[in-house]
Amino acid sequence: MLLRADIEVAVPATSANLGAGYDSFGMALDVHDTVRATLHPEPVDPAHCVSVFGEGEDLLPSSRDHLVHRVTSEILAGRGLAELADRLSLACHNVIPHSRGMGSSAAAVVAGIAIADSLAKLSGLEQEDPARSLARAVGYEGHPDNAAPALFGGVTLCYPDGAGGVRSASVPVDESVRVVLVIPPERLDTGVARGLLPARVAHAEAAANSAVAGLFVHAISNAPDLLLDATVDRLHQEFRRPGMPEALARVDALRAAGLAAVVSGAGPTVAVLGTGEDLVARVTAVLGAAVPGDTSRILGTTVAAAGVTTTVTNVETRGAVIG
Amino acid sequence: MLLRADIEVAVPATSANLGAGYDSFGMALDVHDTVRATLHPEPVDPAHCVSVFGEGEDLLPSSRDHLVHRVTSEILAGRGLAELADRLSLACHNVIPHSRGMGSSAAAVVAGIAIADSLAKLSGLEQEDPARSLARAVGYEGHPDNAAPALFGGVTLCYPDGAGGVRSASVPVDESVRVVLVIPPERLDTGVARGLLPARVAHAEAAANSAVAGLFVHAISNAPDLLLDATVDRLHQEFRRPGMPEALARVDALRAAGLAAVVSGAGPTVAVLGTGEDLVARVTAVLGAAVPGDTSRILGTTVAAAGVTTTVTNVETRGAVIG
Repeated sequence: MLLRADIEVAVPATSANLGAGYDSFGMALDVHDTVRATLHPEPVDPAHCVSVFGEGEDLLPSSRDHLVHRVTSEILAGRGLAELADRLSLACHNVIPHSRGMGSSAAAVVAGIAIADSLAKLSGLEQEDPARSLARAVGYEGHPDNAAPALFGGVTLCYPDGAGGVRSASVPVDESVRVVLVIPPERLDTGVARGLLPARVAHAEAAANSAVAGLFVHAISNAPDLLLDATVDRLHQEFRRPGMPEALARVDALRAAGLAAVVSGAGPTVAVLGTGEDLVARVTAVLGAAVPGDTSRILGTTVAAAGVTTTVTNVETRGAVIG
Repeated sequence: MLLRADIEVAVPATSANLGAGYDSFGMALDVHDTVRATLHPEPVDPAHCVSVFGEGEDLLPSSRDHLVHRVTSEILAGRGLAELADRLSLACHNVIPHSRGMGSSAAAVVAGIAIADSLAKLSGLEQEDPARSLARAVGYEGHPDNAAPALFGGVTLCYPDGAGGVRSASVPVDESVRVVLVIPPERLDTGVARGLLPARVAHAEAAANSAVAGLFVHAISNAPDLLLDATVDRLHQEFRRPGMPEALARVDALRAAGLAAVVSGAGPTVAVLGTGEDLVARVTAVLGAAVPGDTSRILGTTVAAAGVTTTVTNVETRGAVIG
């Protein structure tokens, strides 16, 4: 019997859509939330088993209602390990901003999945395969384009499997690609943004969007010089302009200056893809001139090659420390 | 003054659309038309300056109305070299089947462009840049997804340049990729096929098609095992089923057997993308079982790395042979 364990998971922030890849393309960023999960020998107080530090610390529940704990608990219950959930406490160190289009809820779900998977493995069950983890994450969070890169890292493409599910493929990323995030102070509710999309689009627009989506994969893998052309979107950004005019104004200004700016996920964060050590400086210069008084945070980062990582320590089982 | 020259151009057949890449993706195939152009010292009979061998030899004009001669002549006239066109005869060796979705008319246009470009260069003018050649080809033929691979070889993506024109990018192709063409006896008029498409499509279908288009670029470049998933189309094939039920029946049977079959261009040829030396045998076996009595020609080929090639010989200028 598993008595005690410490599991630390680190999950990347993610940027979804990436222009023409609406609901499909996603990218893991080198900005991470970490969760330290502790399995205790005895049950813990269900009302006070989660500590949150950083983003959301004043708002998020400290009970088992916390999303990470809930995901972990439900998966453990489904695998016949509900008893472990009763003995689990979490310390969440949150860095990913909330409601900004940077995948914070996907990160929480993926953290919960990784903790459950780790505990199941320590209990002698099989590790779940990646497709199952993705299906779980999508079931909780609904955004495969955030969940896949949070799970697998790098740049991922999600696509329908023809049976109501989703598959994911990871594509190579040119080593010179850098990412600059423009994170505004205002939040945006994903559901509101989604409601602004039309039910139908012109066939020619659908075809052109598909062409650019293909170009994006080529550009991110082999030809970053094409990223500006490869991030022209026809399916979501313009429709959502009324819901986030400031974000679209930033995108417009950056693109007019030749920078491959896109709305990150449902926004309002803007992601700029490019190359060169001066990318942050270029973004800052453009926004400083175009949007005076903008208080957005400008954060230079890179594509995170790895998705969620898990480190297990202090494992004690039947009284013996084995790992 | 240019007195005499022989110019031989070889232009690949092309397969356009390739599933989700409607009006954008194209592939050069290792099946070529060749045109031998001869510049004579004196004007030639405009009614009998073109010989056609092979495909179309009983149908195509032998006058300057022949598409290759017309394209060459018009470009030469536009560059101030109309006099050369009066002295030009062509021998066309046609292998690419006509009206089958294999890019025969794009090949003819590209041949005409290449001959004109070669004559212009021999006359001391600059060689046109690739973007200009593509714009010319699209102007004549309207299908950038055939014209681009015929010009540049390999697999190309065409996308709108935002100003009414089109740009093209060439993507790497995994060396193991092979192509099998299923060429039926019946012809299909491209205009008829195009008329079957809807004006608008569901937003979700447009998004899913874009996702698969991205996946195609990854699959053809890095992961041929994903080609079946990466060639699911939502923008053209199903809509055109009434116009070519036999072709779609072949696609259905091949895909059900796990083979990445698509309608080539506007059809009715079917292209199967895959790997392995037995690809022809697998296609033959599936079609033999699924479509008894099918008289389609099954042709194994590969992606042609090069687009149109030009060889110049026997150049005579002001009485001296210089090349």
